[in-house]
Amino acid sequence: MPLPTHPLRDHACLIVHGPDQPGLVAAVTALIARTGGNIVTLDQYSSDPEGGNFFQRVVFHLPDLSAKFPAVEADLQETLEPLGMSWKLTDQSVPKRMAILASTSDHCLLELLWRHRRGELNVTVPMVISNHTSVAEDVRSFGIPFFHVPSQGPDKSEAEARILELVRDNADFIVLARYMQIISEDFLEKVGVPVINIHHSFLPAFVGATPYRKAKERGVKLIGATSHYVTKDLDEGPIIEQDVARVNHAMSAADLQARGAYVERAVLARAVQWHADDRVIRDGNQTIVFSDSP
Amino acid sequence: MPLPTHPLRDHACLIVHGPDQPGLVAAVTALIARTGGNIVTLDQYSSDPEGGNFFQRVVFHLPDLSAKFPAVEADLQETLEPLGMSWKLTDQSVPKRMAILASTSDHCLLELLWRHRRGELNVTVPMVISNHTSVAEDVRSFGIPFFHVPSQGPDKSEAEARILELVRDNADFIVLARYMQIISEDFLEKVGVPVINIHHSFLPAFVGATPYRKAKERGVKLIGATSHYVTKDLDEGPIIEQDVARVNHAMSAADLQARGAYVERAVLARAVQWHADDRVIRDGNQTIVFSDSP
Amino acid sequence: MPLPTHPLRDHACLIVHGPDQPGLVAAVTALIARTGGNIVTLDQYSSDPEGGNFFQRVVFHLPDLSAKFPAVEADLQETLEPLGMSWKLTDQSVPKRMAILASTSDHCLLELLWRHRRGELNVTVPMVISNHTSVAEDVRSFGIPFFHVPSQGPDKSEAEARILELVRDNADFIVLARYMQIISEDFLEKVGVPVINIHHSFLPAFVGATPYRKAKERGVKLIGATSHYVTKDLDEGPIIEQDVARVNHAMSAADLQARGAYVERAVLARAVQWHADDRVIRDGNQTIVFSDSP
Amino acid sequence: MPLPTHPLRDHACLIVHGPDQPGLVAAVTALIARTGGNIVTLDQYSSDPEGGNFFQRVVFHLPDLSAKFPAVEADLQETLEPLGMSWKLTDQSVPKRMAILASTSDHCLLELLWRHRRGELNVTVPMVISNHTSVAEDVRSFGIPFFHVPSQGPDKSEAEARILELVRDNADFIVLARYMQIISEDFLEKVGVPVINIHHSFLPAFVGATPYRKAKERGVKLIGATSHYVTKDLDEGPIIEQDVARVNHAMSAADLQARGAYVERAVLARAVQWHADDRVIRDGNQTIVFSDSP
Repeated sequence: MPLPTHPLRDHACLIVHGPDQPGLVAAVTALIARTGGNIVTLDQYSSDPEGGNFFQRVVFHLPDLSAKFPAVEADLQETLEPLGMSWKLTDQSVPKRMAILASTSDHCLLELLWRHRRGELNVTVPMVISNHTSVAEDVRSFGIPFFHVPSQGPDKSEAEARILELVRDNADFIVLARYMQIISEDFLEKVGVPVINIHHSFLPAFVGATPYRKAKERGVKLIGATSHYVTKDLDEGPIIEQDVARVNHAMSAADLQARGAYVERAVLARAVQWHADDRVIRDGNQTIVFSDSP
Repeated sequence: MPLPTHPLRDHACLIVHGPDQPGLVAAVTALIARTGGNIVTLDQYSSDPEGGNFFQRVVFHLPDLSAKFPAVEADLQETLEPLGMSWKLTDQSVPKRMAILASTSDHCLLELLWRHRRGELNVTVPMVISNHTSVAEDVRSFGIPFFHVPSQGPDKSEAEARILELVRDNADFIVLARYMQIISEDFLEKVGVPVINIHHSFLPAFVGATPYRKAKERGVKLIGATSHYVTKDLDEGPIIEQDVARVNHAMSAADLQARGAYVERAVLARAVQWHADDRVIRDGNQTIVFSDSP
Repeated sequence: MPLPTHPLRDHACLIVHGPDQPGLVAAVTALIARTGGNIVTLDQYSSDPEGGNFFQRVVFHLPDLSAKFPAVEADLQETLEPLGMSWKLTDQSVPKRMAILASTSDHCLLELLWRHRRGELNVTVPMVISNHTSVAEDVRSFGIPFFHVPSQGPDKSEAEARILELVRDNADFIVLARYMQIISEDFLEKVGVPVINIHHSFLPAFVGATPYRKAKERGVKLIGATSHYVTKDLDEGPIIEQDVARVNHAMSAADLQARGAYVERAVLARAVQWHADDRVIRDGNQTIVFSDSP
Repeated sequence: MPLPTHPLRDHACLIVHGPDQPGLVAAVTALIARTGGNIVTLDQYSSDPEGGNFFQRVVFHLPDLSAKFPAVEADLQETLEPLGMSWKLTDQSVPKRMAILASTSDHCLLELLWRHRRGELNVTVPMVISNHTSVAEDVRSFGIPFFHVPSQGPDKSEAEARILELVRDNADFIVLARYMQIISEDFLEKVGVPVINIHHSFLPAFVGATPYRKAKERGVKLIGATSHYVTKDLDEGPIIEQDVARVNHAMSAADLQARGAYVERAVLARAVQWHADDRVIRDGNQTIVFSDSP
């Protein structure tokens, strides 16, 4: 976990990925050098030195970044396009906007709001949306807007339309902090920003509903939690982070759930932090995570 | 972590300790059996089967416990006194009263208040006392009384006298949730209830002030936190619980502190939970912890 | 992990399980007291204080145990049979005989042999059997007999018959230390002793073959290992122990396998140790593990 | 842990460190690009983007490396000397020679020999030296030379002279695998290669002798192990790796020692692996570890 004092003035983050080829790191770092930038962190990964894919994240310090930003982008375009590389440059002093969807459970939600208040997540939180009202007061005590969007009955389209209306153009990514509604493929397409979920099991074990009850029935000795990007295939999206806790025979399914809550909130918080810091690159159904945690 | 739905109606907890001798468990469990109690959990430890000390914790279910409580106590007195054993019987449906002392850091304090609200700590919280006012609003949002007791200058006797006035007869134990004042020996004697502290290092490494800075200077690869009972010897009291987190060269002392906060809150919460459930027995400068955690 | 200096002279271990009822612990401990035994450790678990199942493990010190053993057994029979309880009494100074089946991988096998040589496993090792010869020299360097039982082609009946011949009456339990052959239901019935396996994944994730490759494809962030009793349903037997290790995107399936080997050997060693010390009670498809590890 | 199939043909590892300045990564990667090398891994760390120290480790693939090695070195000299940077280029297909010093404990020693046999440590082992003969047979069963150098009485100079004679020009680094003799400052100077030790505590807790007994007396809930470079100040050298294991009140000092052995062997093996792969850079009394482990 990084825990710098966000926002990071005059720090840019550059993500580059595409077909590996000799000279890529040199090309990118030379570009940064000629802008006058100083590299703070560089992470690089090649799936195979011969014929694989290349992934790079580099953070550099560039005085007067915002004024120079367009010029750096133009230079990147000119340098990297001929090489067939994808890239994205972000100004780390501009936090991402994170909308949160929740239901009645408060543990993941409050953990995010509290870490945000401590300045440990480089995000703003424009809103929390819930299909219940039980967390409204807690959310507002953090000075954050709360919206109640009920979602009853089998047809979720009205609720999803209302959520879309709220988040569109107001969020750079969405976090499902134990939001107990299934998100439709249609919603995912329309919303157009990454959606991060926390699943209360060590995926791919115990997909679907009531994983703690299933874990109890199987007699496992560890329970887990998994944070992943949401795709149209339920519980099948790219995994960002996972962790486990030890349990034993004497614990009921309710005990597993209570203990699991602590794993869930830690796992989701790390996933959100890494996403917010542009440390996660999606590669098909997997992720490259340039984590700063040891 | 237990996580039962506190309070536990008609559940008694009996702690017995003293010189080990054959027949002790039989004597205690026979006593419980003849009262009509059914043993739910029994933990037992002998420091040495020949000539050592014996420690036992047994939880039993006894319908109509409160009415029978005095009779069970009388029976225990008659049975255990001749054997030279110390004992304590508690009704688990009566939560202990936990007063919290804090300063400006909120992480340990909020973790305790939030776990308490979730029903995971078998305590009531009669008050939070701080030498600052920054946490007042958060505390009161949990419906818990807050008292401000300033503590400036080298003479702490006035502040301690005020705290004593507040907690006397109102608390069964006191938790120092990152309370940044040294507690005097005089206070400890007068207050007469256990005081639990969280120290932000893996004791006995880095005793004293600024342990994260010292940890950074020494170049350690793990940082820790230690919860212990407070004695007159600073940082030397019986350890209840410890844990660590991995760090690396790239993290500053401030990063260590920020990451350490998560270890501190988890370690303190476990120590408090075990103390509240009568799972911790002091044995000189050590503790016997009959933890339910695997 | 216990790590006593095995064998434990004059120490008996009693396992009792059956329908929970008031007075069970008292009845058992009174029995031990009247034999003159002194309880060293007592673990007890009730699945439900009202109408559940009761499980108890008690180790007691009884001078001149072997002479008194039959009388204690008779007393147990008389006391516990009317209550409908199952029980088993063992003399802890008599180590269980553990036969090991292996293939070409040496990591689990050598870990067990080495821990045994250090005196940390309360077992004897009458033999190691493998369908390959590559580990023969290592095994014999520990002073342990090695038998080669080839197993080629789809019909395993001849090989299994040969193994049965070797282990029958010579082993109290069998460990599959990365034995890469499927054990038939027929073998399990005929062998009549518990068989412990190590599966190279965090079950129930990645059942079946090549779990590390599947883990790599799914992009998990932790890999695991599971030790379980073998039943006729492959990878579905009662779990004894599990653990995990952290992995990342940069590791190949071969890297996962290499790193996983360290988790496998640790998990299997703990499971074997607990089984050898009569700490594991099977309860349908689950286990009660009265572990001494914190 | 990396676990590649050593040796890595045509892979070079370059370590660069010195005063941070803009353009360093670009200068180094441009140099690699113009030699025709393809970067496989690049790790970089600046203690401060303005005025701090810069540390870089880069592994690159360069066909026909051994022929081009001198030219690359000359280029590095020309490029990096004017910038005041220190650097070291190594051919990863040339394993470092690791001499091991041991006493009677075998756990750390055998772990290293066994990992080496599995091909998981990029080293050769020219010799094991011990002041006892108890491990001789085990060592030779791995096909590795064993030398007995007794060390009795207070004067160690003769023994140290004999060890120097054996290792000089035959070892690139030395590992003390629970070698129970204090190394003199004079020896350290004369031997001229890094010496890695494993200390059986979580340093700086419990420096000096009998740390497990001290840990038991202090009543800690975790025990640890620390691998560090040996300097003239006992137990004060730069820490490479640390880890811990959970213990409890029921464990004796001997139990802590037995359990601690498993932490020691894992911690030492990781430290050795990272050193062998040029992942550890000393920076005063600290280390920069570009670990490949998540």
